[in-house]
Amino acid sequence: MQLGMIGLGRMGGNIVRRLMQGGHSCVVYDRNAQAVEALASEGATPASGLADLVAKLDAPRAVWVMLPAGRITEETVLELAGLMAPGDTIIDGGNSMYKDDIRRAAILREKGLHYLDVGTSGGVWGLERGYCMMIGGDKEAVDRLDPIFACLAPGIGEVPRTKGREGRDPRAEQGYIHAGPNGAGHYVKMIHNGIEYGMMQAFAEGFDILRSAASEDLPEDQRLPIDVADVAEVWRRGSVVTSWLLDLTASALAEDPDLDAFSGIVEDSGEGRWTVNAAVEQAVPADVLTAALYARFRSRGKADYANKVLSAMRKGFGGHQEPKAAPAGTPAKAPRG
Amino acid sequence: MQLGMIGLGRMGGNIVRRLMQGGHSCVVYDRNAQAVEALASEGATPASGLADLVAKLDAPRAVWVMLPAGRITEETVLELAGLMAPGDTIIDGGNSMYKDDIRRAAILREKGLHYLDVGTSGGVWGLERGYCMMIGGDKEAVDRLDPIFACLAPGIGEVPRTKGREGRDPRAEQGYIHAGPNGAGHYVKMIHNGIEYGMMQAFAEGFDILRSAASEDLPEDQRLPIDVADVAEVWRRGSVVTSWLLDLTASALAEDPDLDAFSGIVEDSGEGRWTVNAAVEQAVPADVLTAALYARFRSRGKADYANKVLSAMRKGFGGHQEPKAAPAGTPAKAPRG
Amino acid sequence: MQLGMIGLGRMGGNIVRRLMQGGHSCVVYDRNAQAVEALASEGATPASGLADLVAKLDAPRAVWVMLPAGRITEETVLELAGLMAPGDTIIDGGNSMYKDDIRRAAILREKGLHYLDVGTSGGVWGLERGYCMMIGGDKEAVDRLDPIFACLAPGIGEVPRTKGREGRDPRAEQGYIHAGPNGAGHYVKMIHNGIEYGMMQAFAEGFDILRSAASEDLPEDQRLPIDVADVAEVWRRGSVVTSWLLDLTASALAEDPDLDAFSGIVEDSGEGRWTVNAAVEQAVPADVLTAALYARFRSRGKADYANKVLSAMRKGFGGHQEPKAAPAGTPAKAPRG
Amino acid sequence: MQLGMIGLGRMGGNIVRRLMQGGHSCVVYDRNAQAVEALASEGATPASGLADLVAKLDAPRAVWVMLPAGRITEETVLELAGLMAPGDTIIDGGNSMYKDDIRRAAILREKGLHYLDVGTSGGVWGLERGYCMMIGGDKEAVDRLDPIFACLAPGIGEVPRTKGREGRDPRAEQGYIHAGPNGAGHYVKMIHNGIEYGMMQAFAEGFDILRSAASEDLPEDQRLPIDVADVAEVWRRGSVVTSWLLDLTASALAEDPDLDAFSGIVEDSGEGRWTVNAAVEQAVPADVLTAALYARFRSRGKADYANKVLSAMRKGFGGHQEPKAAPAGTPAKAPRG
Repeated sequence: MQLGMIGLGRMGGNIVRRLMQGGHSCVVYDRNAQAVEALASEGATPASGLADLVAKLDAPRAVWVMLPAGRITEETVLELAGLMAPGDTIIDGGNSMYKDDIRRAAILREKGLHYLDVGTSGGVWGLERGYCMMIGGDKEAVDRLDPIFACLAPGIGEVPRTKGREGRDPRAEQGYIHAGPNGAGHYVKMIHNGIEYGMMQAFAEGFDILRSAASEDLPEDQRLPIDVADVAEVWRRGSVVTSWLLDLTASALAEDPDLDAFSGIVEDSGEGRWTVNAAVEQAVPADVLTAALYARFRSRGKADYANKVLSAMRKGFGGHQEPKAAPAGTPAKAPRG
Repeated sequence: MQLGMIGLGRMGGNIVRRLMQGGHSCVVYDRNAQAVEALASEGATPASGLADLVAKLDAPRAVWVMLPAGRITEETVLELAGLMAPGDTIIDGGNSMYKDDIRRAAILREKGLHYLDVGTSGGVWGLERGYCMMIGGDKEAVDRLDPIFACLAPGIGEVPRTKGREGRDPRAEQGYIHAGPNGAGHYVKMIHNGIEYGMMQAFAEGFDILRSAASEDLPEDQRLPIDVADVAEVWRRGSVVTSWLLDLTASALAEDPDLDAFSGIVEDSGEGRWTVNAAVEQAVPADVLTAALYARFRSRGKADYANKVLSAMRKGFGGHQEPKAAPAGTPAKAPRG
Repeated sequence: MQLGMIGLGRMGGNIVRRLMQGGHSCVVYDRNAQAVEALASEGATPASGLADLVAKLDAPRAVWVMLPAGRITEETVLELAGLMAPGDTIIDGGNSMYKDDIRRAAILREKGLHYLDVGTSGGVWGLERGYCMMIGGDKEAVDRLDPIFACLAPGIGEVPRTKGREGRDPRAEQGYIHAGPNGAGHYVKMIHNGIEYGMMQAFAEGFDILRSAASEDLPEDQRLPIDVADVAEVWRRGSVVTSWLLDLTASALAEDPDLDAFSGIVEDSGEGRWTVNAAVEQAVPADVLTAALYARFRSRGKADYANKVLSAMRKGFGGHQEPKAAPAGTPAKAPRG
Repeated sequence: MQLGMIGLGRMGGNIVRRLMQGGHSCVVYDRNAQAVEALASEGATPASGLADLVAKLDAPRAVWVMLPAGRITEETVLELAGLMAPGDTIIDGGNSMYKDDIRRAAILREKGLHYLDVGTSGGVWGLERGYCMMIGGDKEAVDRLDPIFACLAPGIGEVPRTKGREGRDPRAEQGYIHAGPNGAGHYVKMIHNGIEYGMMQAFAEGFDILRSAASEDLPEDQRLPIDVADVAEVWRRGSVVTSWLLDLTASALAEDPDLDAFSGIVEDSGEGRWTVNAAVEQAVPADVLTAALYARFRSRGKADYANKVLSAMRKGFGGHQEPKAAPAGTPAKAPRG
């Protein structure tokens, strides 16, 4: 079927490519004219702007917006809403905050427009592996666009089937779900990223302790030099922590166990933060997901003032002077409290 | 080749079975005579005690001890050491603390005995899937017993190969490694379990927040009823959190999304605790791994006194009375601090 | 001077009493007529509603709203705004969210009204000890109402003066500050409560570990029976943790070291949650303040589903059966991962 | 009475001074001859070594060892034990690990010697304010040396008395307690320091969030410039977080709210770590105390490798490049998971 795509970055562009490979036709637009031309040369219909894109689609239209979360997505969705007709559908495939989806969907509903919030996982691997999609919105629009989602999804592949799923929604094992009403798609994607943070941090801490077993701070007869690349590899087979994140870690460590190419400054996205906010709002303790987020803040030196406050207090009660450079890992000579 | 096995519980018994399926011969002993008979009926040579087991093995002998960590393993290893001859090898395949390995290995070395500490992952699935093994000890013994480890390991299977591993130890992709000197095997296994705790807790918190999106504590237009079983299933394909633990979660949720069969009282093993101790000793921040451990403590009501102290202070400064039953998730009517 | 007070609960009522003791005159209103009568009998001027209260005050008026945070405060402030005249001031002395203050103040400013957000600490002790106040809003209104704040504040008392404060705002050592523009008052109060949570949890955990030193789970020669009431008392003199919260803890433990009167179900207020939200928004790692909040959630059984997910996974990979009752503190017999 | 003191650093020296001011006589020794001379010039009896010190004391002797925890304390205590006679007492006033106390006391008991472990809080303020002491050991020795402890303790001072302590041990309100058998003294001191870490971190995080309210990362109309020095000061009166640590913070912030003299590299002592170990051993969740410890580790760059692992994974699944410099606090443009 036909789909309009706004935003032709890595994600939007590859979604168009996978759809065209699946026999669908796409009308595409991006502020960057070169990105439009590139996809036009691969078979997409280029559009010169939102109005042009809408005009080139047959009703009932479906337009996928694949832009960074925030103002640009908000403005694009609302501008599109002014150009489209009752029965048309706007899909936000980006990483919007789920409460924004609930709000926007209500606005569009009054105009007779459908709105779908689609959490999309897959990253740079999506074109090849397919995209895992979590869709929020009304059943009518989700069902009508099923060919699009089915084409983008990874499909059942070689993943073993889960027992006891007979009678449950078959789309889940194809790699996409109708998660619920508007907001549910991005909510599920948000939680996915929250869990991702937690899992990543679990691996990061584990490999850090693993590597520090060879530390010169330890007594010599207690030091354990361990090949972290081999450890990551061995855990890929038959262990409990087998996972795609472990595969990636094994790859990176095989290339360089010291990871010298990295500085260790780690960004975070909105979704990790919103997960914590949702946990707090719903009074669900989320110690691990939150600690993982804060570890990223700390990686960026965001606790510097807090640490200075600690130093100031320590000087105040114990006369402790700060070390000029970071001290070794073993405890200092028992400063007193 | 030939192996003695002491301890024929679920792990020990299945290891013997997998070895016999691979053409190896085993002499077996357990305090429980029925366990010995059962394996004898499957082809193992029964032994009536440690001395008998040692007598039935040809030098250089190898005896695998598969008992709960702690005193029983300690006593068995030391008693065996008194019965064996220089050149023989004792394998501790249980979950011993790595510092105990370092200590024991030194004792055995003086008697000319080899000691291997083998962290073994695989649980109830090991017989079929193979065991992921992390081995600590001297090269001579590890190499001599390679046929045993190769047989127990999962093998390369259908897991895609990691790029850039050319020239690295090929055993890792078979599912076993010589992790380093004594202690390294159990150290790596300990970290494995530590990471496992963190990953499990990440999933647990994520699914909890997911499910609470439908909470009646939320305003009605903000509630999102989400099918957690479908979510677990869809993430198995193309998402970043794809993992064996997710597979298991999908299975459990397909059976019953409410998990009513479980009470939520979660035990912990020594290894989760030792991971935290190692992090503390080596000054590696392990917020996620530690929070995961503490969440298990809390699941068992281990913070009750701490909570009473909080209540006592709240009564002291604010006159707050405790609710008779746990209050709903939304904040109370702004008690004052 | 003259002040209107709306909301005559424990806080509002005692603020009126302290003001009248200081020679100020108060016009009071509460939905509960008995509360109005009670204060009228102590010298306050009763009002029958918001309009009556406004009518009984001389311009420029000042009305203090002391109601639970949320809709009731919002509605009262906006209704009052419709009844008051340019130059008048509305004070929100409750625990409103600081972003609500910023929003409300903008609305009132357009009508020529002043708005002050006053974070008020003191609880049940305020009438006697005075109230610690953190005030947000424009200088004109803060300065005009200084006699009110000065009267309510604790004053310099016997607290030793801080060196180096010469030239700084003298109000701080009287126990009140003009914290900044609108929102700043409640923001500072919010952080105060966030810190309070962290400190309380630090004590709670410490006393829990202290008490558990006598646990029967420990080897007999390692058990340390410690009198927690004496410990709390001794730390009140010359230790680093000397604090009012410790005083309260010492009091409670002197009464009953086992705290049997408490169940350990701990509520939380909006401010602990908003502190976490602010930390997340501003990318400040707040591990301790957040852990303290989550510990309260956990005290109310809010992690039950998460714990069931853990149990389901453990059954999945290890065949672990949950204990019928919570196990003892020492690790179980090394369940395997 | 008479006391020997070994170790004349800041703590040991001032303890001797306070004792001499109280009319007691001290025999002193330190490896540093100048330290010995200095105290001799103030009235102490100098000793040239352990044997000389023991010789200069009358039986039953009492020798206080005030050295850094670890090998030097261990060796000194054992050497002293060889020089002393049945009925004598050795006091370890340093920060030893409580399990070392339990072990050492058993060794000394066999020789008829008493051993007291005395947790001592007071830091640089102890000479003037007195020392808060927590004593572990047998009643006989604790009672015999009561004049020493009573002299060193702060005394009841101006701290208000706790209701309900009638009939309880009166020493607690003097600032010292007999905490229990050997080990209990240092155990209580260890917990004290653990709580201290948690409280300090609570303040540090709170002031960090407070200060970041003025961050340029926030929308301009949401920024709140707040005078942190005034906030610290105002909380000293009538607030719930009133404490000595707050007094110290107020002092430091009055001097420089930006704390530019500090780098924010924060050391930790053995006691913060042992508190976590004790919590883990006794299965008491200690999220706050542990997070406070880990924050110190992170302040010293101890998570660098963990952070690199995160970056490597992010590159693996999302093609994310690390920022060259730390990004601002607001979320990046929604990188995708």
